[in-house]
Amino acid sequence: MLPTTDRGRLSRERIVASAAAVVAEKGALGASLDEVGARATASRSQIYHYFDDKSDLLRAVAEATSDAVLDGQRVLFAELGTWVGLVRWTDALVSLQVERGAAGGCPIANLLGQLGERDDDIRVVLSAGFDRWEDHIRDGLAAMVAGGELRPESDVAWLAASTLASLQGGLVLSQARRDPQALRRALDGALALIASHRTAVETA
Amino acid sequence: MLPTTDRGRLSRERIVASAAAVVAEKGALGASLDEVGARATASRSQIYHYFDDKSDLLRAVAEATSDAVLDGQRVLFAELGTWVGLVRWTDALVSLQVERGAAGGCPIANLLGQLGERDDDIRVVLSAGFDRWEDHIRDGLAAMVAGGELRPESDVAWLAASTLASLQGGLVLSQARRDPQALRRALDGALALIASHRTAVETA
Repeated sequence: MLPTTDRGRLSRERIVASAAAVVAEKGALGASLDEVGARATASRSQIYHYFDDKSDLLRAVAEATSDAVLDGQRVLFAELGTWVGLVRWTDALVSLQVERGAAGGCPIANLLGQLGERDDDIRVVLSAGFDRWEDHIRDGLAAMVAGGELRPESDVAWLAASTLASLQGGLVLSQARRDPQALRRALDGALALIASHRTAVETA
Repeated sequence: MLPTTDRGRLSRERIVASAAAVVAEKGALGASLDEVGARATASRSQIYHYFDDKSDLLRAVAEATSDAVLDGQRVLFAELGTWVGLVRWTDALVSLQVERGAAGGCPIANLLGQLGERDDDIRVVLSAGFDRWEDHIRDGLAAMVAGGELRPESDVAWLAASTLASLQGGLVLSQARRDPQALRRALDGALALIASHRTAVETA
């Protein structure tokens, strides 16, 4: 049930944030409603007031996780419409992995790995998160076409899909190797592919 | 302990295969030694004869999983030294996802997501699996340079790293969307980047 008051909204958000923290520590399958309640100082009946069951709560965690990942890039997304902004976005993604010691991988992909084959509703929520991510990249590339930085015939939908894949795979390999340079190499591949669509003026 | 007799080796392999099956069903954290024993018709003391603890058994599962993923591509790897072979390898990867309904993702990445932040020994095993995968791609690209299909100055180590990232990210996005075309787009990005290094004769 979605809350109708500010106080209800804050309660619900506190439960979701606590659930996200427990999931991060124990894994989605290992997280228990009792632990979530203890961390959120919420009773089981309060949790059941807002969520049908554990799956419903995990779906809210998936939504909150997608929102957080995308919100964290909001300023960078706004500048994706230029080559400089595109490079800056990749630099920021690599810097974040440097800060994190390349641990943890992508939070959306993590939940997908834990829950994607077990709960189709949650898979769909996570897939929508990836779709929104890809849309931001595609919008940026389309703005580069409109601004004359990329050639008009560039397939920006495909380039965006391919770029998000490079990013996701780069995060997997960075996590495996504890090496942010694995993400750097992957994103440099994406940048090189996009660069091959730059107009002659821009690449000169 | 590694077995010294054929019979011991088969016992150990049966336990590892059973553990892999239980992990696939219940997740690595949810898998219990009792369940593994029941499936392998092995007693707890037999399991402990070959493995120090659950972590040790999971490490063997990680090794077996990496071996299986790479063995499955052995014939394709052998033909990676030509453009035709490279395209055929990507086609086979996409076909496999079509067969699987784009479910499950990469088995190595799955284990990484479940165990990579919990067990550093296992992370290292999985990372080595990715390294071997990348080496096969790099060897193929180096053969394409030697055969005159790629320009001599091509950075095959970087292209291989970037290609494996495209593949891994494409598998994440295919799994999220239940759509093998997400992998196709990602691998087409990798192929386009490699194609930009083809010699003039080959691209003509």
